[in-house]
Amino acid sequence: MKVSFIGIGQMGAPMAMRLIDAGHELTVYNRTASATQALVQRGARQALTPTDTLNADVVITMLADDSAVRAIWLDSGLAQSVPAGRVHLNMATTGLGLAHELLAAHALSGSIYVSAPVFGRPSAAEQGQLDIIAAGPANALQQCRPLFESMGKQVFEVGQEPHKSNAVKIARNFLLATVIESLGESFALVRKAGVSEADFLNILTSTSLSAPVYRNYGKMIVDKAFEPAAFSMELGLKDVELALSTASDLGVPMPSASLIRDQITAAIAAGHGKQDWAALAQFIAKRAGL
Amino acid sequence: MKVSFIGIGQMGAPMAMRLIDAGHELTVYNRTASATQALVQRGARQALTPTDTLNADVVITMLADDSAVRAIWLDSGLAQSVPAGRVHLNMATTGLGLAHELLAAHALSGSIYVSAPVFGRPSAAEQGQLDIIAAGPANALQQCRPLFESMGKQVFEVGQEPHKSNAVKIARNFLLATVIESLGESFALVRKAGVSEADFLNILTSTSLSAPVYRNYGKMIVDKAFEPAAFSMELGLKDVELALSTASDLGVPMPSASLIRDQITAAIAAGHGKQDWAALAQFIAKRAGL
Amino acid sequence: MKVSFIGIGQMGAPMAMRLIDAGHELTVYNRTASATQALVQRGARQALTPTDTLNADVVITMLADDSAVRAIWLDSGLAQSVPAGRVHLNMATTGLGLAHELLAAHALSGSIYVSAPVFGRPSAAEQGQLDIIAAGPANALQQCRPLFESMGKQVFEVGQEPHKSNAVKIARNFLLATVIESLGESFALVRKAGVSEADFLNILTSTSLSAPVYRNYGKMIVDKAFEPAAFSMELGLKDVELALSTASDLGVPMPSASLIRDQITAAIAAGHGKQDWAALAQFIAKRAGL
Amino acid sequence: MKVSFIGIGQMGAPMAMRLIDAGHELTVYNRTASATQALVQRGARQALTPTDTLNADVVITMLADDSAVRAIWLDSGLAQSVPAGRVHLNMATTGLGLAHELLAAHALSGSIYVSAPVFGRPSAAEQGQLDIIAAGPANALQQCRPLFESMGKQVFEVGQEPHKSNAVKIARNFLLATVIESLGESFALVRKAGVSEADFLNILTSTSLSAPVYRNYGKMIVDKAFEPAAFSMELGLKDVELALSTASDLGVPMPSASLIRDQITAAIAAGHGKQDWAALAQFIAKRAGL
Repeated sequence: MKVSFIGIGQMGAPMAMRLIDAGHELTVYNRTASATQALVQRGARQALTPTDTLNADVVITMLADDSAVRAIWLDSGLAQSVPAGRVHLNMATTGLGLAHELLAAHALSGSIYVSAPVFGRPSAAEQGQLDIIAAGPANALQQCRPLFESMGKQVFEVGQEPHKSNAVKIARNFLLATVIESLGESFALVRKAGVSEADFLNILTSTSLSAPVYRNYGKMIVDKAFEPAAFSMELGLKDVELALSTASDLGVPMPSASLIRDQITAAIAAGHGKQDWAALAQFIAKRAGL
Repeated sequence: MKVSFIGIGQMGAPMAMRLIDAGHELTVYNRTASATQALVQRGARQALTPTDTLNADVVITMLADDSAVRAIWLDSGLAQSVPAGRVHLNMATTGLGLAHELLAAHALSGSIYVSAPVFGRPSAAEQGQLDIIAAGPANALQQCRPLFESMGKQVFEVGQEPHKSNAVKIARNFLLATVIESLGESFALVRKAGVSEADFLNILTSTSLSAPVYRNYGKMIVDKAFEPAAFSMELGLKDVELALSTASDLGVPMPSASLIRDQITAAIAAGHGKQDWAALAQFIAKRAGL
Repeated sequence: MKVSFIGIGQMGAPMAMRLIDAGHELTVYNRTASATQALVQRGARQALTPTDTLNADVVITMLADDSAVRAIWLDSGLAQSVPAGRVHLNMATTGLGLAHELLAAHALSGSIYVSAPVFGRPSAAEQGQLDIIAAGPANALQQCRPLFESMGKQVFEVGQEPHKSNAVKIARNFLLATVIESLGESFALVRKAGVSEADFLNILTSTSLSAPVYRNYGKMIVDKAFEPAAFSMELGLKDVELALSTASDLGVPMPSASLIRDQITAAIAAGHGKQDWAALAQFIAKRAGL
Repeated sequence: MKVSFIGIGQMGAPMAMRLIDAGHELTVYNRTASATQALVQRGARQALTPTDTLNADVVITMLADDSAVRAIWLDSGLAQSVPAGRVHLNMATTGLGLAHELLAAHALSGSIYVSAPVFGRPSAAEQGQLDIIAAGPANALQQCRPLFESMGKQVFEVGQEPHKSNAVKIARNFLLATVIESLGESFALVRKAGVSEADFLNILTSTSLSAPVYRNYGKMIVDKAFEPAAFSMELGLKDVELALSTASDLGVPMPSASLIRDQITAAIAAGHGKQDWAALAQFIAKRAGL
């Protein structure tokens, strides 16, 4: 398939590489062109402008945030100039409002908008082990399936309306934040009672909280392995604020998200911004005098 | 082994039954004597007073709360009259202060205090599938091991000081509460975005939150299966307040516990007190206008 | 002085009337022209477009929110076409980001931006009893002084940079919200102890909490006088969200604002949106089962 | 009148002195006898045991907390041995549960229990400027009136049941805590926007938040005048926990109290425990990176 890929960052680079390796004809674009070098050496064509990417069946974007997507697709008019029938597949964590705007813009062009954010860190992207949450018109999802299979290990289709997959991604990242916050609070409590974090974590993950998230974040916290950040506190704050602005738009009280936002804000003010967001647990421990 | 069992309730009854079935010589006591009937028919000796239970190697208590244990062991003097060398094995969810008091009282009598709260609901108790968190002197823990094997599938020893196992139990029950609260908030968010709870739950438990706790509470919430309560909202409030009073004693800020306490209090005021504490998620949905 | 006034609403109308009565030569503009009728009858000139207002020494805006100001001054280019030396005096509750944008836009035109939000309800505006928080260049503030004297009873100058007055207004409205929330919680507590709200309020306002805010909101709560709303719950939510977005931009944890945002969101979901925001206290009472 | 006074501390000493100066025949008791010296020199009789205080029309207690009152009146049997018709006037901040217990104990003896906590710091006590919240049987309140007049400037009678005055005192101290917390949050916000705390405070107290509490705490915060503590953070925590335990008993969600409890706990862990509880605002500023 002819595929374009806009946004060759920590996640985008390994995802694009998987697509080349699966035999797709790939065009790549990144604002800083040097990031595309390894992909070009592997056979990708380099686009010099976003418009250069439009000659493809599917144009994937994996950009930093709403405003990066909005800048390329809405403000600079890509959505208006994309030929009818082409698919724009947005795989980043973006908001529901943006999904509504892109849906409308693509509808005008006769192009198709699919939103398919992913769960997983760069290492999972390299191995094609991402979990993909996809929403869009059924035939467009079908068209994207070979791409999903190259990049992910599971695909969950959640409906025709693109914003639904964004809601799932946002709500689930909020849940990750609650795991870190609650591990932090409970670790502080047991430590002050003389129990080691490691022992407590072992009990948790040997019983009914035996999920990868508890194991992985728990181990990072026990090992104080917060640098280099797989997912930084600042990115974490961005995600929690995305949850809160979505909650605000939809009229949902999310007191846990509110509380975590305030904790992360304080943790960043205390200098933890560049650490992995699991360092929130260490900040919580300090707050308890540990 | 000669074993006594005080407190034949929802949890105590199946636990005691397992001990009889494992061949232990069991004496049972319950304030309301009728509760012991099935056990007596199976061969248990009925004690008419708590003091009647003291002629045993190990006296297990599985009582409702701190004040029930305090009433029997401290106020009415059982800890003073227990013969030296006997083991008092408390398997209920009780506080750290009580552990300190009982440790001191038993030290005076030359008897031994072991604290070993359990994870698991009555059905797990019936099948001997409890998880047991044990703390006490090493030789006493060794002595209790055959009993633990009859009642549980795993034992975690967390040290010599009995209060440590209470801290683990309290901190872990707090984590369960955060799972319900955060599921409630995230379910409300996705529902308002048009995604069904069931689809969202399936995604969560098929990816990195695949823990029994998320599956079980998630299913209860999706099915609105809150009655009869396996663990009522009122008991949940008791546990969260135990976490908060422990946090207060140890000087640990636990904002998530605080927030959940207020939510549960409001949920009880709204009439959910006798439902399973997973109904908190439904209360949260209502708060979002769902 | 030649003055223009854009935004003839609940607050703008009485403020503009005060200016006419003080002898200023007033031009008025409102999107819905009918709102200006009473002012025109009193001698104001009616502008047909925003641009029509620019022939004045000072152009006052009193618009609903950031986006209304942005639409007129930035998107439709008023800030670009305003003659050099003219003063744009924004008296509404708007954000710090908007203040920075307007400052930059006016600097390009050689015009001057002054931000001067007010404290006080429509009845205070009618009587020229507003409190005015002003920030802008010293000579512009001096030029505005006669206008302030017609509309307000006190002016507080907080510096040259316009955004400072916005920060003061936002922070102070947040404090009003905390008064309502805390009165709600404390009223619920004393009521459940058998003490009447009215008695408790009398004690508070006869001792060290004797401020108008406690008296006024307290009385509204005791009297359940929430309709018609002097300041609706929905407007209150907007103000608390303004506090939170400002806090987010500046890196300030504001847990009280977070908690109140969630409470108001729930209160609106429960149908209180059009009531005065003091009705939050009634919602809190219901949450306690009262 | 023959009056006894138990508990000669920071508050009790000046209160007792006022009674002597008003001509009452005073007997004083304090666990550490040296504290009574100045009063004895002024003419008070020194009681050697609590029982020694019972030969009086009214026995006032001004003790540190519930357990101090419980120790003297309930555990050591003073309430049982007090002659019928005598009044026990408890003026400290204590809980509703204690009020119920003392009411019952005095009813058995035919003695009378009045609860009358006070608002005000030691300096107000010296000048007889306390605010007194009194609850008890009407004739007992009448009997106490001359004493109240010597110690206070206002008396608020809130009913026959003693616990009601405790509820008022607890709810109002909670409100003080919310003032400190909200000032702290709003000060952090305006400071980060470049506005000085002093300017902001001046605006607040010149407009609708012009209450002594805002002025006094505001000034302490602006001046960083936290030592010596007029009311320490640790005492503040005790009061907020009293609010929360009362809320728990009565089934009232008090999220603001919960949040402040966690903040104060963290502030104490950070070393602010002996400072005035207004220092919470400084802790909040630090949390914002100031």
